[in-house]
Amino acid sequence: MVLDAAAIDLLFLKAHTQRRWLDREVPDPLLRQIYELARMGPTSANCQPLRIDFVRSPAAKEKLRPALSEGNVEQTMSAPATAVFAADHEFYEFLPKLFPQADAKSWFTGSEAATRETAQMNATLQAGYFIMAARGLGLDCGPMSGFDRAKVNAAFFSGSAWKALFLCNLGYGDPTGYRPRNPRLDFSEACRIA
Amino acid sequence: MVLDAAAIDLLFLKAHTQRRWLDREVPDPLLRQIYELARMGPTSANCQPLRIDFVRSPAAKEKLRPALSEGNVEQTMSAPATAVFAADHEFYEFLPKLFPQADAKSWFTGSEAATRETAQMNATLQAGYFIMAARGLGLDCGPMSGFDRAKVNAAFFSGSAWKALFLCNLGYGDPTGYRPRNPRLDFSEACRIA
Repeated sequence: MVLDAAAIDLLFLKAHTQRRWLDREVPDPLLRQIYELARMGPTSANCQPLRIDFVRSPAAKEKLRPALSEGNVEQTMSAPATAVFAADHEFYEFLPKLFPQADAKSWFTGSEAATRETAQMNATLQAGYFIMAARGLGLDCGPMSGFDRAKVNAAFFSGSAWKALFLCNLGYGDPTGYRPRNPRLDFSEACRIA
Repeated sequence: MVLDAAAIDLLFLKAHTQRRWLDREVPDPLLRQIYELARMGPTSANCQPLRIDFVRSPAAKEKLRPALSEGNVEQTMSAPATAVFAADHEFYEFLPKLFPQADAKSWFTGSEAATRETAQMNATLQAGYFIMAARGLGLDCGPMSGFDRAKVNAAFFSGSAWKALFLCNLGYGDPTGYRPRNPRLDFSEACRIA
């Protein structure tokens, strides 16, 4: 079993980062459905450190606005929803439930460096799965790293161990908003087979 | 357009991290095809820092062996191919080609911290796309962070700016090798809507 050409187009070949949105809502059950696909992807010791604040109400959007780079304000304020992807740096508290095979929590409680790296790497991987799941369920994505991380952490995650990774607008894209696609690296520039 | 149930099963719901492999090769053109899907996924300023060494020959596998955690040796040595995912910390050299809209190279050449973070985060995102693309083309994946990163960097990336992120076995999984699936976090444990 492999994906058919239409599915490959949807996920990879014809998908575009989106900056302009149709007037169509992204309802709560769809956000939940995307998460419930993305969470199935593999993480190290099943640690699942990705956390997501879905910013959708006008009040929440206003809380986000001051953290956005100028070029990202309009596309974000007009998006039906914006996912704030974060890594939970206390993800290990869930390990007794998520990885009952071993005392995995003890691998992290003593080491801030291992905890930070595991949280960031695995949450970022999960964000990649999330983008694919969102596209797979018909949404367009507009991921952005142009924002002030300290401001987002202060506005959304104060007093918690969640730390922002990047933002991703979600909605149904207006095809007039696509930029021309930039080039990709060839296999021989990025890969070797030994 | 959304994925049908079979595609969702293939990518997410019925996919398993694999540890035991059928005797079936993973040919070069398939590795190239996976990469050519994965590279289409979004990265910050189109920077595409993911680099991959596909380890397949007995000689290359032996080079990898001393870096593997004990529990990962057998599944890796028997896998048809093992991807060493790495981040190119000199990815910015390609930016004049990849992001011709701006002098994006200058955003990074002065800042080691920004370069490291951009390299690691975006290469990890791309590795997530790669896992989805591999599954979408019918392969099973066995990602692993149980290895000695310094040894892999010394054995594979000496004298280059590539730095290992994690490993991923690739092949056609033997269903007798699945472990029971561990639990996933509920939406309410990992997500909020505001």
